[in-house]
Amino acid sequence: MDAATPPAAPAATPASARVEITYCTQCRWLLRATWVASELLTTFGTDLAEVALVPGTGGVFRVRLGEDVVWDRSVDGGFPELADLKRVVRDRVAPGRSLGHTDRAAAARTAPPAG
Amino acid sequence: MDAATPPAAPAATPASARVEITYCTQCRWLLRATWVASELLTTFGTDLAEVALVPGTGGVFRVRLGEDVVWDRSVDGGFPELADLKRVVRDRVAPGRSLGHTDRAAAARTAPPAG
Repeated sequence: MDAATPPAAPAATPASARVEITYCTQCRWLLRATWVASELLTTFGTDLAEVALVPGTGGVFRVRLGEDVVWDRSVDGGFPELADLKRVVRDRVAPGRSLGHTDRAAAARTAPPAG
Repeated sequence: MDAATPPAAPAATPASARVEITYCTQCRWLLRATWVASELLTTFGTDLAEVALVPGTGGVFRVRLGEDVVWDRSVDGGFPELADLKRVVRDRVAPGRSLGHTDRAAAARTAPPAG
């Protein structure tokens, strides 16, 4: 390594990562939103600064990680796949961490068929 | 009413009200925290800007409304009574709203005994 090469950029300071889940109250998506929040907090705990539930209207279901929109129903359609969402959050807040079966299932989906 | 009397101070702009629930991950209080969050969001919906779940450690269970701490386990002991918490939030974000049985139960507790 060139002595002048800076070290790899560090991951975002863990406790600075805020997730924001905006859901449509008219569509009664509060339970979906709290489910996603609970899953992320169960997996990442204090590696997240907070998960905010934001009541909205008009069919919104949007997940932000920091300033980035990582899922938006109006763009992506439907609802986020939780395993995909966890990988996105993991890559930001705990890049070295294995997500166990979530990672293995993703690897299996992308592996060539056996035989 | 004196003509010079200013109108009563308006309630805070509804959508500016943020609730923050800090819970201890070591104590496994995530479900308590999400329960409180869900109850507040079910009752107040878009009158709240957001309810944030904040993972902490060391036995913390604290509820903030805006900048104000409205419940702190280290001061108040135990856990907040949900009806009391809803009244505090209601008084801030929707002062005219009845909370139904929650208000009636509180009135019954403070009324003098019959007879």
